[in-house]
Amino acid sequence: MNEIAQLSTPAETMMANAIRALTMDAVEAAKSGHPGMPMGMADVAAVLFKRFVKLDPSAPGWADRDRFVLSAGHGSMLLYAVHHLLGYADMPMGQLRAFRQFGSRTAGHPEYGHAAGIEVTTGPLGQGIATATGMALAERMLNARFGDDLVDHFTYVIAGDGCLMEGISHEAIDMAGHLGLGRLIVLWDDNGITIDGGTELSTSTDQLARFAASGWHVQRVDGHAAEEIAAAIEAARADARPSLIACRTVIGYGAPTKQGSHDVHGAPLGAPEIAAAREALGWTSAPFEIPEAVYAEWRAVAERGREAHAAWVARLAKSSLRDEFTAFHTAPDARALDAAIGAYKHSLIQSAPNVATRKSSEMALEVLNETLPNTVGGSADLTGSNNTRSKGMTSVRPGDFGGRYIHYGIREHGMAAAMNGIALHGGLRPYGGTFLAFADYARGAIRLSALMGVPVTYVLTHDSIGLGEDGPTHQPVEHLASLRAMPNLNVIRPADAVEAAEAWQIAATAEGRPTALILSRQNLPMIRGRHIDENLTARGAYLLRDPVEGRDVTLIATGSEVQIAVAAARLLEGRGIRAAIVSAPCFELFAGQGPAYRLRVRGSAPRVGIEAAIRQGWDLFLERNDAFVGMTGFGASAPAARLYEHFGITPEAVAEAAERAIANNRKQEELA
Amino acid sequence: MNEIAQLSTPAETMMANAIRALTMDAVEAAKSGHPGMPMGMADVAAVLFKRFVKLDPSAPGWADRDRFVLSAGHGSMLLYAVHHLLGYADMPMGQLRAFRQFGSRTAGHPEYGHAAGIEVTTGPLGQGIATATGMALAERMLNARFGDDLVDHFTYVIAGDGCLMEGISHEAIDMAGHLGLGRLIVLWDDNGITIDGGTELSTSTDQLARFAASGWHVQRVDGHAAEEIAAAIEAARADARPSLIACRTVIGYGAPTKQGSHDVHGAPLGAPEIAAAREALGWTSAPFEIPEAVYAEWRAVAERGREAHAAWVARLAKSSLRDEFTAFHTAPDARALDAAIGAYKHSLIQSAPNVATRKSSEMALEVLNETLPNTVGGSADLTGSNNTRSKGMTSVRPGDFGGRYIHYGIREHGMAAAMNGIALHGGLRPYGGTFLAFADYARGAIRLSALMGVPVTYVLTHDSIGLGEDGPTHQPVEHLASLRAMPNLNVIRPADAVEAAEAWQIAATAEGRPTALILSRQNLPMIRGRHIDENLTARGAYLLRDPVEGRDVTLIATGSEVQIAVAAARLLEGRGIRAAIVSAPCFELFAGQGPAYRLRVRGSAPRVGIEAAIRQGWDLFLERNDAFVGMTGFGASAPAARLYEHFGITPEAVAEAAERAIANNRKQEELA
Repeated sequence: MNEIAQLSTPAETMMANAIRALTMDAVEAAKSGHPGMPMGMADVAAVLFKRFVKLDPSAPGWADRDRFVLSAGHGSMLLYAVHHLLGYADMPMGQLRAFRQFGSRTAGHPEYGHAAGIEVTTGPLGQGIATATGMALAERMLNARFGDDLVDHFTYVIAGDGCLMEGISHEAIDMAGHLGLGRLIVLWDDNGITIDGGTELSTSTDQLARFAASGWHVQRVDGHAAEEIAAAIEAARADARPSLIACRTVIGYGAPTKQGSHDVHGAPLGAPEIAAAREALGWTSAPFEIPEAVYAEWRAVAERGREAHAAWVARLAKSSLRDEFTAFHTAPDARALDAAIGAYKHSLIQSAPNVATRKSSEMALEVLNETLPNTVGGSADLTGSNNTRSKGMTSVRPGDFGGRYIHYGIREHGMAAAMNGIALHGGLRPYGGTFLAFADYARGAIRLSALMGVPVTYVLTHDSIGLGEDGPTHQPVEHLASLRAMPNLNVIRPADAVEAAEAWQIAATAEGRPTALILSRQNLPMIRGRHIDENLTARGAYLLRDPVEGRDVTLIATGSEVQIAVAAARLLEGRGIRAAIVSAPCFELFAGQGPAYRLRVRGSAPRVGIEAAIRQGWDLFLERNDAFVGMTGFGASAPAARLYEHFGITPEAVAEAAERAIANNRKQEELA
Repeated sequence: MNEIAQLSTPAETMMANAIRALTMDAVEAAKSGHPGMPMGMADVAAVLFKRFVKLDPSAPGWADRDRFVLSAGHGSMLLYAVHHLLGYADMPMGQLRAFRQFGSRTAGHPEYGHAAGIEVTTGPLGQGIATATGMALAERMLNARFGDDLVDHFTYVIAGDGCLMEGISHEAIDMAGHLGLGRLIVLWDDNGITIDGGTELSTSTDQLARFAASGWHVQRVDGHAAEEIAAAIEAARADARPSLIACRTVIGYGAPTKQGSHDVHGAPLGAPEIAAAREALGWTSAPFEIPEAVYAEWRAVAERGREAHAAWVARLAKSSLRDEFTAFHTAPDARALDAAIGAYKHSLIQSAPNVATRKSSEMALEVLNETLPNTVGGSADLTGSNNTRSKGMTSVRPGDFGGRYIHYGIREHGMAAAMNGIALHGGLRPYGGTFLAFADYARGAIRLSALMGVPVTYVLTHDSIGLGEDGPTHQPVEHLASLRAMPNLNVIRPADAVEAAEAWQIAATAEGRPTALILSRQNLPMIRGRHIDENLTARGAYLLRDPVEGRDVTLIATGSEVQIAVAAARLLEGRGIRAAIVSAPCFELFAGQGPAYRLRVRGSAPRVGIEAAIRQGWDLFLERNDAFVGMTGFGASAPAARLYEHFGITPEAVAEAAERAIANNRKQEELA
């Protein structure tokens, strides 16, 4: 066991031991949890907070606070203990006693929104460091707009070995190093232990050399030596590059017989070991009790933050940029957007563009980015394909953060996590593009967008076999279903330029929910000539055509397949069959409509669902005897028209399916 | 434009120009495709094949061939051109003329199984290099078993900037460097260009330093200078570490006005530019014509391979390990496994273990790994949680490849891709574990398992809110649906130890399809006391209980929820309601049963589906008026029993849902 006396101030030792004691007690009470990391990194956390971190527990959402991200989210007790000690009102001791229990704010992993000051949900490894990259980028972008007086803070990350082994860390490191995000400081808990055993079982990367290769400032310290830690953080803050500080620690530091072993990572220590640890640490307080002197040290940190906050409030009050800053930090101007999009939709009726929805998405973005000042666009190196860059959007570049367009590189996962970070930081609303098929690469971060409810927008183009020759690796088949499966995510697949504009209006004003826009590569005709004053896309599904004489069949389609439904209805008309047509751009929004509306849209006639994807998820609209025209397996490489023909997604196939569905229905009615 | 004369042998110049000419012609004919990479890397490919690669086009599956992986899959014409020039029987000129057309073998991206010698499907960036890591690992593992006489080959990769920016590349590089996979040689097409523009838009990582930090041997060459290239490959082969060779190239080399720009990446050059390129390259043959002298050079490579193959065949014939080698390289002994698993299932009836399915999976693995000699296990650093290591499995370690257990590290995506590579290599059958929630991280590679149809097994534990306190980040809710959405993947969620054994039997003998095993953290009682001589799991769903007097309701459940169905049936019995119980471990296998069987299992009585996950996908069993007891959103952090209660997934809730379904059904019948 290292000498705790290495810590040079007794105050910091006690501050750190408070984290250790609370961690041991809470994990023991919960009979589950991860003591290893909080105990190992307690000294680093104590020094970081005591000497550097700027936050105000009485105003947890203060825009210019430092961001603290616990990327190694399993060590959640470190965060909860610190919040309790700092005096966050919603983190009384009762919450620590209820660690990992139902309804408590102290979930197994930190959950954004459960308690003030939890900046991001972490737990899936690597997400924290990648999200923090987005936060640090947002800080620089806002600094470029509002100056040092209003925006001038750091983003601190505690990351573990797992965070650095995950692939997403590479994307984040490369991006942060490239952009020179000097306000990003990563404290790596270099304890040499993973769940399976020592890190030597699976890795031998020289992390300092790796980070340095991507343009980072790197240092190594003893993670139990306060002055070393403090000097390194000081140097990191002074350096213009993002910083990695490798903190060599003993996992579970303080637990005399278990520390330094993977046994201390993810299980309670047990009463005898806890007793021994208390003795070793010289910690004499009862479980869940903290000496007032220790509270005083922690609350001095809060007091320093309160003063900094007050000074900032005074600067904001005097600032010429006050109104603009406030506008950036409040909800988007929905009324202005409504007017602008409304006028734009009217203009579409005149021009009736026959363009891909990726293109009409770009056209909508021209309006949107003009109207809302704080949107920031980007793409994972597919700008020209995703059509994500509207006119006049200049690129964010190293040292030049005034632009509104981010070249995320070929890093879908990193992009998604960075967008989460930008949105969580506040002040900016991000959207970013890739091919729909590669949403798979970003799924870990998309899930966190949904779980946290952050309003980021995914622009996912090339949405079906309609992309043609690139073949099955690039052709989404199951992706609509797999995204629709995710709770709290709006998946919108517009059919034409009007729906694309409406989809963007929904995405741009969404609160508490991310949006995935699903867009075609191929051109699509205008199908919505009427009722453009209402945002019908917000209904999720609506009747595009409803024969006044009643319907024999209802054709329900999304995106590029709505035009096929329209053509099929024409064929059916020629055969004396009256077809209603439903455009269904967003299943989630439709599910939220009232039963009467849903019934009216679905109708009672036999139905045919049409989507160039698998049927899974279509039970929202279809019943067992309804028909579905779509895909059942992977696509193929060929021109798009040939593929639609081959896979039988054509007006004729839909018309035949409709006729069969009507015949089946008649037969069943006769049997009944 | 660099001087083509830098290439020191005229033969290699012509060999390279043949690749360039065929690429230009095929992309032009297809009116789509990517000429930039094949033209830029043609010189490297010519040198690599002419001087080094060992393969026999007349025996494309020869076990000891070198593996060539085109990680930058969009440059597929490089591969097709090389295969044509080498004389692969299934790659005549007609295939190149039909590039990217329906039914051709020359898909937009290389598709495994479409033509001989395509070692892996590539296109989603980074997958090739990560899959190649698995191939190179398999080579060393088989070498450890069978010696240099039988297994002694290289894995060559051509990778682009995109491959190295993707996060998965970090996981692969770290793993290959750690294990010291010296037979892995990556040729990086360092052309400085991405789709959005120059690489300086988004990255500034020093790749050589990055690879060196992970223990790689690194070199830099002019990618148009044959002797430099050859010397570097020579040095790479001689070095014990995996090697990166950065080949500085001009993208689209040979196209006089477009080369070196991102315009040449992914679009046809157009007739005038092609004419100018032919002139610049001194290439006088007509489109799709190759001078016989050039063919002769390429076929000399094939001839060298044929001789090496013949020598290897002779060595195998004399080898004392011949039978074992052959056994490793043929389908698993299904009969032996059937006997072993059969006996094991009988023993379960005696012991009736009340264990988690992750544990009964381990128990089945004890039998399976004993019976099949060439399975290789592993986990993404969750060995003790995934229960993936059976007794006596020793670890693969750097320099020691005799073990059967791989510590993949905290690298789910890299693990999945490496398993694809091991399976594609042949000789070994891989399985590997992580938490079900983190299947999201690996989804890019799982999709390729399914698309290629490689028989890898994903062991996905902690499969629901039943994992308890770790909370919503770790609790799968939508993952069953999102995996079931993927074509050609068997998703099996066993309910007890018998079904777990049956699931493993299916996975271990699968051909042409990967398997995902979905396993509980919490203990589950035995529910299958009868009919254990048949693998009922292979039916996908089956009647666990079918009241002889007929049924009033059918309860259909999977995995840990089958016991809830059993308890609910007991409650219902007390209320005079006869419930049939269906265990439904695998939706995909059930969908493949005949209609009569499916009808019998589903029954005509009202149904209740029960699964601690979202309903999506359950329309295979349920109709609109049937009930579903499961989840509608994300989980929470609390002990598992509390969560089941909170989310209403209990026997009482199922019984109530059944009663409601019966009442609704009665009402509808009265209305009809």
